Amino acid sequence: MKLGFIGLGRMGAGMAANLVRAGHEVSVFNRTPAKAAPLVEAGAVAAADIAGACRGQAVVSMLSNDEAVEAAAYGENGVLASLAPGATHVSCSTISVALSRRLAADHAAAGQRFVAAPVFGRPEVAAAGELSVVAAGDPDAVQAMTPLFEAIGRQTFVVGEAPDAANLVKLSGNFLIAAVIESLGEAMALVGKAGVDRAAYLDVLTNTLFGAPVYRTYGRLIAERQFEPAGFAAPLGQKDIRLVLAAAEELQVPLPLASLLRDRFLALLAQGGENLDWSAIGALAAKDAGESIG
Amino acid sequence: MKLGFIGLGRMGAGMAANLVRAGHEVSVFNRTPAKAAPLVEAGAVAAADIAGACRGQAVVSMLSNDEAVEAAAYGENGVLASLAPGATHVSCSTISVALSRRLAADHAAAGQRFVAAPVFGRPEVAAAGELSVVAAGDPDAVQAMTPLFEAIGRQTFVVGEAPDAANLVKLSGNFLIAAVIESLGEAMALVGKAGVDRAAYLDVLTNTLFGAPVYRTYGRLIAERQFEPAGFAAPLGQKDIRLVLAAAEELQVPLPLASLLRDRFLALLAQGGENLDWSAIGALAAKDAGESIG
Amino acid sequence: MKLGFIGLGRMGAGMAANLVRAGHEVSVFNRTPAKAAPLVEAGAVAAADIAGACRGQAVVSMLSNDEAVEAAAYGENGVLASLAPGATHVSCSTISVALSRRLAADHAAAGQRFVAAPVFGRPEVAAAGELSVVAAGDPDAVQAMTPLFEAIGRQTFVVGEAPDAANLVKLSGNFLIAAVIESLGEAMALVGKAGVDRAAYLDVLTNTLFGAPVYRTYGRLIAERQFEPAGFAAPLGQKDIRLVLAAAEELQVPLPLASLLRDRFLALLAQGGENLDWSAIGALAAKDAGESIG
Amino acid sequence: MKLGFIGLGRMGAGMAANLVRAGHEVSVFNRTPAKAAPLVEAGAVAAADIAGACRGQAVVSMLSNDEAVEAAAYGENGVLASLAPGATHVSCSTISVALSRRLAADHAAAGQRFVAAPVFGRPEVAAAGELSVVAAGDPDAVQAMTPLFEAIGRQTFVVGEAPDAANLVKLSGNFLIAAVIESLGEAMALVGKAGVDRAAYLDVLTNTLFGAPVYRTYGRLIAERQFEPAGFAAPLGQKDIRLVLAAAEELQVPLPLASLLRDRFLALLAQGGENLDWSAIGALAAKDAGESIG
Repeated sequence: MKLGFIGLGRMGAGMAANLVRAGHEVSVFNRTPAKAAPLVEAGAVAAADIAGACRGQAVVSMLSNDEAVEAAAYGENGVLASLAPGATHVSCSTISVALSRRLAADHAAAGQRFVAAPVFGRPEVAAAGELSVVAAGDPDAVQAMTPLFEAIGRQTFVVGEAPDAANLVKLSGNFLIAAVIESLGEAMALVGKAGVDRAAYLDVLTNTLFGAPVYRTYGRLIAERQFEPAGFAAPLGQKDIRLVLAAAEELQVPLPLASLLRDRFLALLAQGGENLDWSAIGALAAKDAGESIG
Repeated sequence: MKLGFIGLGRMGAGMAANLVRAGHEVSVFNRTPAKAAPLVEAGAVAAADIAGACRGQAVVSMLSNDEAVEAAAYGENGVLASLAPGATHVSCSTISVALSRRLAADHAAAGQRFVAAPVFGRPEVAAAGELSVVAAGDPDAVQAMTPLFEAIGRQTFVVGEAPDAANLVKLSGNFLIAAVIESLGEAMALVGKAGVDRAAYLDVLTNTLFGAPVYRTYGRLIAERQFEPAGFAAPLGQKDIRLVLAAAEELQVPLPLASLLRDRFLALLAQGGENLDWSAIGALAAKDAGESIG
Repeated sequence: MKLGFIGLGRMGAGMAANLVRAGHEVSVFNRTPAKAAPLVEAGAVAAADIAGACRGQAVVSMLSNDEAVEAAAYGENGVLASLAPGATHVSCSTISVALSRRLAADHAAAGQRFVAAPVFGRPEVAAAGELSVVAAGDPDAVQAMTPLFEAIGRQTFVVGEAPDAANLVKLSGNFLIAAVIESLGEAMALVGKAGVDRAAYLDVLTNTLFGAPVYRTYGRLIAERQFEPAGFAAPLGQKDIRLVLAAAEELQVPLPLASLLRDRFLALLAQGGENLDWSAIGALAAKDAGESIG
Repeated sequence: MKLGFIGLGRMGAGMAANLVRAGHEVSVFNRTPAKAAPLVEAGAVAAADIAGACRGQAVVSMLSNDEAVEAAAYGENGVLASLAPGATHVSCSTISVALSRRLAADHAAAGQRFVAAPVFGRPEVAAAGELSVVAAGDPDAVQAMTPLFEAIGRQTFVVGEAPDAANLVKLSGNFLIAAVIESLGEAMALVGKAGVDRAAYLDVLTNTLFGAPVYRTYGRLIAERQFEPAGFAAPLGQKDIRLVLAAAEELQVPLPLASLLRDRFLALLAQGGENLDWSAIGALAAKDAGESIG
């Protein structure tokens, strides 16, 4: 396939490399052009602008938030203005349900196809081509992107025909992780104040009921109060919970645990946690309980 | 060792059988004597009363709640009145921190030893001798019980010298499971109302970030609204969250997520959920969102 | 003063009438022109469009929400395009902090003045010229509007130089009322389930600690489950709590009670309460407790 | 009437004095006997012990909590052991629903009568004989106490035949006050962080929608962060919310706002607020928002 790829950050660079490796003809674009160099060396073509990355059957965008995707899609010579009729925009970014819906409508109006395909996995997983892809969109359009998904991931889940369903599933995944962080934070505040060693406690949990990596990873960060450097920064966590709540508001679904997480993230940011890992909300219960932290 | 065992319910029967199998000399007692028969066949001795189960180096109690343990310990010819000086009461029941502390003090006053050793695992795990034991108490006393723990479990975690630390850890584990149920309930209410199939959604979760059995098990019950028969009944879940909150109140630790769970359990019971599995709180978010359930 | 007035709904009609009565020269505009008739009879001039209401020293806008104010201000021949340099836009609508801030900036850029002056009081209070005005803006601009405020209200509170401060104060007032509704709803769910008559209970409250009209009014609606017709409809309550939370998010202030109210309003709307009075959230606690309502 | 009075604290001293003043023959008892002196001077008789205060038609108890009432009622030569058949125990203390129910049952079993009659009003109101009495119990028994209620209060509300109904109503009143404190705390955290002067803000509130004394009193304490000396100490507030939640648990009524208040009080106590006024929970929202307090 002749493809374009927009957004060569820590996730996108690995994904684009795997598309090249799989034999696709890939034009890459990044706002900071230097990031394209290693990919060009691997066989990609450097596009001079977004339009230059939109000349194939499909273009993948992997950007950091709504604003970046909106700029890339709606800007002058952006994706909407540049993509050929019948070609597909595959949006892998974690964006709002509302923007996904808007993109679906506008691409349809322009005779183009739109598939949402956010991914689960960290940068090293992306580099290994082992991501999990959650895709939604017109069944034919999703089907046609199979080679692309196979190049970047080890499994693809199709969750519906409305693209925004995939975005909602992705956002809800981050909500579930944040819920794990909060629950561990409360449990550790409780047993910790009772004198139980937090690391020993985590050892009990991960060797009994909670062996999943998410408990090991975040449990250790909370137990050790090690929130720097940020793997996923607090403002990003706050943003994702905001997007979950925005979708829930539109669908009229009250989510008290998500509301609690919202308040936790606001407290963390208000108390100076801008540069901390999002798991730092897991220390707030202990702080409320009188422990002096950071 | 010469041991006694009080409480031959679904958990206790398996634990006592494994003690017999390991070669210990075990006197068993149950309020309903019929339950002792299979154990006697396997080599145990049927004690006529609690005092009869208290004639060895240690007696294990595995009862359903504070009231039952209190009756067994403080009743006429109960454990406190019957156990020899220097002998050990090993309490495996899920009881309150307050009762555990009271037992520790009263056994000490009587010249006896007290070890709290609640367990993680379901009846079939108990039958297989594969429980996880969380033990706390005087180090010598805990150490002396090693053969006993090895007979009933596959691993033992010692979490402190105050016995109630073990009870708190056990209770906090049930809090963490209830938190998983709530988070899955909210996430499914959200994606479900957006039209995503709940079973397909669970498939995404358990094959990506949330592979732990606790997500598979409870996720399926919530997705299928299958809350009968109850594996762990709603009133027991409510009780454990109450005990978590009672411990938290004494330690002055605010736990907003536990408070939310408390309210969920009360709502479930108030709305007729007495006989449902505790995971039925995972349908309340959808009910709040207007879905008509059961 | 030579004034314009945009928005002749239940509140605006009374306010405009009082401006006429006080001797000001008032040009009135309403999207549905018929509403201007009684005012013209009283001495006002009917403006043909928004621009026609913007030819004096000041124009007052009293519209139902952000969208309406945005359209009036930014539309073709809207307030921004029509107001003379140095003239003042007095915004009495209950709008978001964000829109207020945007209006302040854009009026300043156009050489115009902007004063936010939301009001407390129901339509009959507006008709009587007895509103409470909460004003904020440049001190000179606010000062110059004194005759206007005196015509529509019985008291004016100046709360700052940034216009959006007034909007925030107004929104927070609605949050406080919603908090009263929620607290009464919970208290009545509790005592009601214990068998205490809700009306008798309210009688105790209003004759002891809680004599304020807000307790009498909403307490009666909740006690009698009389939520129709809506004095202030549920979607408006939901909107105001959303605006409070949006302002709080920007300021990084976690507000758990406001979050709870948000969830209550979403539950009410999801369960079919679109046309009910906002005090209907005061029945949700009883519904959670198993009472069958509406 | 020939009466006894147990508990001559700040509230009880005023109440007993008014009973003497109304012409009743009153035997008074206090654990610290010195407190009886002014009453004896006014015409009361000093009882040597609780039994000595139980020789008339009725005995009033006005003590600080469940423990004190339990000791007075169930102790050796306590109220239950000393009161004549047919005589009435009037319990004015703020106690739990559970203890009230237990007292009702035990007095009935002893052939005595039990009326719960908690009061609203501060010490100076008690001294003036202007309390509001909330009474419940057997109608004849309540009726017979009318002269007593008239001596201590300006109005009496009868809320049911089960005495504990009165205790629940009293406790719910303190819940409603705490809800006012929380809502003011959140509103002031929000507008305060936006730069609005808290005192000016309170002025707006109390001159518009929220004129009730409870808003004035607590609003001022929160605005000025003046939490010492405590008019009603934080541990007492925490206790009353605990009793509300205990009653709600038994009745299966989820109360999310009460749960939030519980967590606030625990946070306040955990952070060193033991000696502060209970309105100090009204500063926690600002603290969460990053304000440095106390």
